[in-house]
Amino acid sequence: MKILITGGAGFVGARLARSLLARGTLAGKAIERIVLSDQAAAPADLLAHARVEGRVGPLLAHCEALREEAFDGIFHLASAVSGECEADFDLGLRSNLDSTRALLDALRARANAGAAPARLVFSSSVAVYGPDAAVPMPARVADETLPTPQTSYGTQKLICEHLIADYTRKGYIDGRAARLMTVTVRPGRPNGAASSFFSGIIREPLAGTEAVCPVSPEVSHPVSSPQRTVEGLIAVYEASREAFCGRTAMNLPGLNVTVAQMLAALEAVAGAKVRALVRFERDERIAGIVANWPKGATAGRAARIGLLPEASFEDIIRQYIADHTGHPTALKGLA
Amino acid sequence: MKILITGGAGFVGARLARSLLARGTLAGKAIERIVLSDQAAAPADLLAHARVEGRVGPLLAHCEALREEAFDGIFHLASAVSGECEADFDLGLRSNLDSTRALLDALRARANAGAAPARLVFSSSVAVYGPDAAVPMPARVADETLPTPQTSYGTQKLICEHLIADYTRKGYIDGRAARLMTVTVRPGRPNGAASSFFSGIIREPLAGTEAVCPVSPEVSHPVSSPQRTVEGLIAVYEASREAFCGRTAMNLPGLNVTVAQMLAALEAVAGAKVRALVRFERDERIAGIVANWPKGATAGRAARIGLLPEASFEDIIRQYIADHTGHPTALKGLA
Repeated sequence: MKILITGGAGFVGARLARSLLARGTLAGKAIERIVLSDQAAAPADLLAHARVEGRVGPLLAHCEALREEAFDGIFHLASAVSGECEADFDLGLRSNLDSTRALLDALRARANAGAAPARLVFSSSVAVYGPDAAVPMPARVADETLPTPQTSYGTQKLICEHLIADYTRKGYIDGRAARLMTVTVRPGRPNGAASSFFSGIIREPLAGTEAVCPVSPEVSHPVSSPQRTVEGLIAVYEASREAFCGRTAMNLPGLNVTVAQMLAALEAVAGAKVRALVRFERDERIAGIVANWPKGATAGRAARIGLLPEASFEDIIRQYIADHTGHPTALKGLA
Repeated sequence: MKILITGGAGFVGARLARSLLARGTLAGKAIERIVLSDQAAAPADLLAHARVEGRVGPLLAHCEALREEAFDGIFHLASAVSGECEADFDLGLRSNLDSTRALLDALRARANAGAAPARLVFSSSVAVYGPDAAVPMPARVADETLPTPQTSYGTQKLICEHLIADYTRKGYIDGRAARLMTVTVRPGRPNGAASSFFSGIIREPLAGTEAVCPVSPEVSHPVSSPQRTVEGLIAVYEASREAFCGRTAMNLPGLNVTVAQMLAALEAVAGAKVRALVRFERDERIAGIVANWPKGATAGRAARIGLLPEASFEDIIRQYIADHTGHPTALKGLA
């Protein structure tokens, strides 16, 4: 089978590609080819793999050609992130909305030409939820909670969920939207996402450098490790339509933690000296965005296909440490 | 003030224009000009009015010019209807989604150039609601009910609601989405809407001709008269942002009636002979669409701005009769 991963050079996309290559099969079929489409080049280890092909450029520019190319499965992860979308409204519309529409229309053109509908997993986000004056947000958002997004990013993700549901209803694709919880601990540099600090306050101290937390310790949020997130995307792909249950987007599991609990876990795993590298300095822009995010989430439908959140935030930190053992600087703080 | 009504030649749009002309003011300001944009020419009585201008053509073709033209208020009613959107997927995307996006982007361009954000009322629909395997639909859908649309029309309306909420949040417009209940009794010929029979089973017998009801008498649905619907759109326009309460779409009031109750009301108002002109002949396509529609609705937020449903379906029939008194054929069945 042939798989397309949009956003395939990104952190989650590349990890998904590595997981798929390690498995060798998806939904019972041998994986013959994985195409990674992204604005940036995919990591060298992936491009070196005989079954992997990288395509660099905006997704929107790739979609026309997709009308002529057969893919069995698509993981549609490409997205501008929340901070970018707030700063540049047109960028968000183009990257998150127009690109998804173009991708779906390419797949529809193929189905209309007689191809079997491609299976598509869309990475939506917990950012679809938010408080609205008319509709209070529950302490833990559930699959059934009414999404009233408070950012352009969340709005665009929600719109894509509904497009995918309708293209699925019409038989143009076999689409499943899964709402990712905030993925942490991300490696590398901070990115434009307002949620970037959720990784930074763990990653930087582990590397022996200072980190600034822009929100208060009481801030609570549902998070998931990179590995659980990738496992969730694969399980959603492999679920039967009946097991996925309907066409409404499904929450992936999240561990509901406060910033204080995250830092306590950091101290438990890495010691007080590492923990002490985090200081609090409020950033009103970030704090304002985060204040409108869910404080916790449940994932009832995901549990029914066997997906559960991490048992503890310590486990999430240990996963990051295991992933970076041998890395020259990532764990310098532990030395 | 200058007002744009998209879909202004349609039944609701034209009635809205007449109501606005009769009032002379909107939100406390004198109405100087009403532009009716539609695919078809507006009714002659409206075009004869000194303050009214008609523009014929697809909305999408008009939007670029709207970047150069100041409107204080917009009633965005233009839409392909449910049956059309199911039959022609591209038509629905273009008419309902791309046109709304182009309209919003024209208004955004004006706001970005320094104009005050235009106030916009969007006619969404009770068709945003539907049953999904994961999320059962309540007997009466409320403002807070999770919409899981089961038609392309409902999907596109819901997507537009969320676009309008986000353009409003960003300050590009002052947008309010109001979900219309099924408007009945519509005059004229049946249209492509799957809900067309809700008017036909009253209108045709009153005109002395047979009508076919494609669904069973037990089918229940929330409906509203044309006049209440227009009053609702105006009240939503005039509400303060605080009174509108949030940016989530608001249900307009609907009277929850069964087809049997509608026909009993017809008999009460117009007699048994008129009622006897309706026969039942199931249409699987229509029945299938309608089966996924809400059986009833509530409108708690609308009630808080003073909007209530009709007291009885008899009142709705009497409104139609009053509207058509003197019409040569519309009430022939009553003769």
